[in-house]
Amino acid sequence: MRMSAGSGSPAPILINGSWRPARALETFTAFDPSSGRPLPGVYPVSSFADADEAVGAGRKAAGDLALVSSAVLADFFDLFARGILDRGDELVETAHRETALPAEQRLRTSELPRTTGQLHQAAESVRDGSWRQATIDTKFNIRSVREPLGGPVVVFGPNNFPFAFNASAGGDFAAALAAGNPVIAKGHPSHPGTTRLFAEIARDCLEETGLPRASVQLLYHLKPEDGLRLVAHPGIGATAFTGSRQAGLTLKQSADSAGRLIYLEMSSLNPVFLLPDAVRERGLEIAAELFSSCSLAAGQFCTKPGLTALLDNDDGRAFVSAVVKHFQSPPSGFLFSRNGREAVEAAVENIRRLGAELLAGGKLVLEPGYRFENTLFRISGERFLRNAGELQVEAFGTVLLLVCAESEDVLLHVAESLEGNLGIGIYSGSAGGRDEAIYDRLAPILRLKTGRLLNDKMPTGLAVVPSMVHGGPYPAAGHPGFTSVGIPPSFLRFTALRCYDNVRPDHLPPVLRDPNPTGRMWRLVDGEWTREDVP
Amino acid sequence: MRMSAGSGSPAPILINGSWRPARALETFTAFDPSSGRPLPGVYPVSSFADADEAVGAGRKAAGDLALVSSAVLADFFDLFARGILDRGDELVETAHRETALPAEQRLRTSELPRTTGQLHQAAESVRDGSWRQATIDTKFNIRSVREPLGGPVVVFGPNNFPFAFNASAGGDFAAALAAGNPVIAKGHPSHPGTTRLFAEIARDCLEETGLPRASVQLLYHLKPEDGLRLVAHPGIGATAFTGSRQAGLTLKQSADSAGRLIYLEMSSLNPVFLLPDAVRERGLEIAAELFSSCSLAAGQFCTKPGLTALLDNDDGRAFVSAVVKHFQSPPSGFLFSRNGREAVEAAVENIRRLGAELLAGGKLVLEPGYRFENTLFRISGERFLRNAGELQVEAFGTVLLLVCAESEDVLLHVAESLEGNLGIGIYSGSAGGRDEAIYDRLAPILRLKTGRLLNDKMPTGLAVVPSMVHGGPYPAAGHPGFTSVGIPPSFLRFTALRCYDNVRPDHLPPVLRDPNPTGRMWRLVDGEWTREDVP
Repeated sequence: MRMSAGSGSPAPILINGSWRPARALETFTAFDPSSGRPLPGVYPVSSFADADEAVGAGRKAAGDLALVSSAVLADFFDLFARGILDRGDELVETAHRETALPAEQRLRTSELPRTTGQLHQAAESVRDGSWRQATIDTKFNIRSVREPLGGPVVVFGPNNFPFAFNASAGGDFAAALAAGNPVIAKGHPSHPGTTRLFAEIARDCLEETGLPRASVQLLYHLKPEDGLRLVAHPGIGATAFTGSRQAGLTLKQSADSAGRLIYLEMSSLNPVFLLPDAVRERGLEIAAELFSSCSLAAGQFCTKPGLTALLDNDDGRAFVSAVVKHFQSPPSGFLFSRNGREAVEAAVENIRRLGAELLAGGKLVLEPGYRFENTLFRISGERFLRNAGELQVEAFGTVLLLVCAESEDVLLHVAESLEGNLGIGIYSGSAGGRDEAIYDRLAPILRLKTGRLLNDKMPTGLAVVPSMVHGGPYPAAGHPGFTSVGIPPSFLRFTALRCYDNVRPDHLPPVLRDPNPTGRMWRLVDGEWTREDVP
Repeated sequence: MRMSAGSGSPAPILINGSWRPARALETFTAFDPSSGRPLPGVYPVSSFADADEAVGAGRKAAGDLALVSSAVLADFFDLFARGILDRGDELVETAHRETALPAEQRLRTSELPRTTGQLHQAAESVRDGSWRQATIDTKFNIRSVREPLGGPVVVFGPNNFPFAFNASAGGDFAAALAAGNPVIAKGHPSHPGTTRLFAEIARDCLEETGLPRASVQLLYHLKPEDGLRLVAHPGIGATAFTGSRQAGLTLKQSADSAGRLIYLEMSSLNPVFLLPDAVRERGLEIAAELFSSCSLAAGQFCTKPGLTALLDNDDGRAFVSAVVKHFQSPPSGFLFSRNGREAVEAAVENIRRLGAELLAGGKLVLEPGYRFENTLFRISGERFLRNAGELQVEAFGTVLLLVCAESEDVLLHVAESLEGNLGIGIYSGSAGGRDEAIYDRLAPILRLKTGRLLNDKMPTGLAVVPSMVHGGPYPAAGHPGFTSVGIPPSFLRFTALRCYDNVRPDHLPPVLRDPNPTGRMWRLVDGEWTREDVP
């Protein structure tokens, strides 16, 4: 994506149920990552006036949405999922063009079903309502429940999941709307055509189900300063951002200073620790797994392992050799943008400058398209510790740093030096073996550094289940108490906890009245979880 | 409280289990609010070195506390509650001297039982463990639970509840420690002797139960700039602050910029809306209730109603006359400090300057002690709306602004103009009467402005039950998704959501293993709340 004067009429934006021209002074085009050439289609960089209008319409929609039954909201999600499937070919084709992600293995057979699956799960959770944690204390007649925020949620979609994290169809979209908040999608400018298709389908489904027109609105792009104003807008309910640390922290500062909620899922190295018996027993197998996880989508997963720590012994060195072989293969995919490739180049240069030894790759691959060699570095534990902060910079590509620790103590110090991460894995040897003693020292350190601790498994895959935590301590995320993946817990980010104190029965929302509103909703009544009516 | 050179040896601070002299260049004394005279006892204003040492010790204690069984942690709370009762006379006497709150009706018979009750409730919740929301998805073997933050929680206690919100014994203290985090109490400088007594009892109970020594530490006071550094310290887990908006927002900015969690319970007007039939049917009764709520503890409740809105009709004018009579009584209590009295004076001057009509009081009361007349203002709805922002400034005393709206529409506009509040009440007439139509228009507006909506009840009283919400939208609180009162939900502020993905059974914390760890803990297993073992 680059700014350009563009040619042709810019694509319309979706405001308050209508597709209309943006008030924009600039336009942009998307690029085909496999060729580096601009794609057809010109998109507007909205002025702040567009964003402001979306907030106004979204705020009104928030009030109207509060009057919609959960059954109707759930129907919207199911209908939207079916509408997406109906236009699956078009979506896959468009996203493939804009991202160069494999059309079949990735987009059609993996990411599309995940996306529609998330929407169906959202429908189910909305229908059920248990996620709202309705709490009733009969003795005092006080009743609390999680309610929508009262204003639209701005969703900044990332570049790397054009479907599953799309600003107008993905996880944050589903979570914000399922919790009852209108969404203002700020699409990622690398795949505007894909985002537009989703918004088209969503708009039709809003109309069909009778949801408020401004429940889903779309802006393709904003100038950075207008993005900062938007997240601080007094009319919004919250912001959800998935993307780089730099952009995320800038938005956070703006939102924080205005007292606006913002949830951030930022960069992460997702370190993997390999204990000595694991390396000895199944080093070759782990090396293959590690490379596969690291190179998935050309290393552009937010859960990609970017650092692997192990002991520098004979087994460790054999393991490193095995990993080198994998990394010597040619890059299997494309980076999403020219900027992305430049960022990988800068990250690689940074790692080299800080004294890591280059074992494979290290250079960009010449035209066509945006590619970078699979790149592997090795550094000793002691040397890593001297620059641990600077070495923990995400390289969004197939780039891995092997930290070979001189001793178990050094391995523990490496663990202690880590920043907050989304995921951290530990591989250990056969149960009851010598690795257990190291595990017991290492795990308590690593546990505090991540939202998700894995055993014997690479961090890239994320199951969308209630127990999933995709989040973690700062700066992996903005708040360690929430997850951005997992339905329904990801909804909780977009709710206010509200209580009704001595409120008359007729004035209570149905969810808090004595009869169970659906006959199956879990509620915490006088300290007991129950599906019964309040007696 | 004023800074002074002081005389005598300053009181020791509690760091890492030992009472030791502070590293302080300044000292302060507390004052008797009923006389304005300094009390015996000199207390240190700690240097940042004291705070830094407390963080270091607290961080280590956080690791040790994670190894303590919940049974032992629960025992600490019960023991602490009993220890407080044992020294109840001394506590009541000291707090009465430092705050001038009534020793019997308030401190001994109301606030002390509430405080020990909170601690016993915390013990019960810790033993039970259900609040941790353990979530297990067996198909994927992913398991999540709420865990302590990994560093100490800094608790800034307010001046107005020397027991129930005390930094070393109150609600935030209990919530942070019950969630498994060590506490660094930053006592309120208006009642250092009371805070010291609690810390003494807590320290003995830590020793007796074998909890880590640094689980409770105490600093009496910090310079403002050192407070800002402390809440941004990378070693802390979070901060809980209860107090003024000005101090809270300054701390928030510092914590936010460092990516540190901070929970704030700031000022609030807690408006009460009186619908016309309610005023007609029981105006006299409501007038008495309103004055009683407003003047409780000389108006120094964070839930004190500071604004009451009603229609300007015959019934409304009769109601105003009734309220005036109540406010003409002499002030029944003392303000906590000279600064507090100055702040009330400034707030009253502000309301007057903005065109409200003074109906009663308005002046400070001369010596002895810190007193201010019960003060009542009236303003028309239209006039209120012209300066709605500036008129929403908390006056921490018996000060009330009556907003007399010209019409129902004006009443609704007044509602729309409100900032975030901790509590908002609506009084309406007999069920099924004419007020219902107004209620239906008013309640959706007010619902978004507060964490707690009340019917036919003044906001001052807070039951400590799971459904209580003491919080609300910014700027009443920092995050609308949490409550600072209510056990166990208030614990959730001080937790990280963490998952175990494919983690081996032996590596799981007991709370997530297949057998129910207590036989009675509620866990969400495959989408169902259950107390059974995982099959």
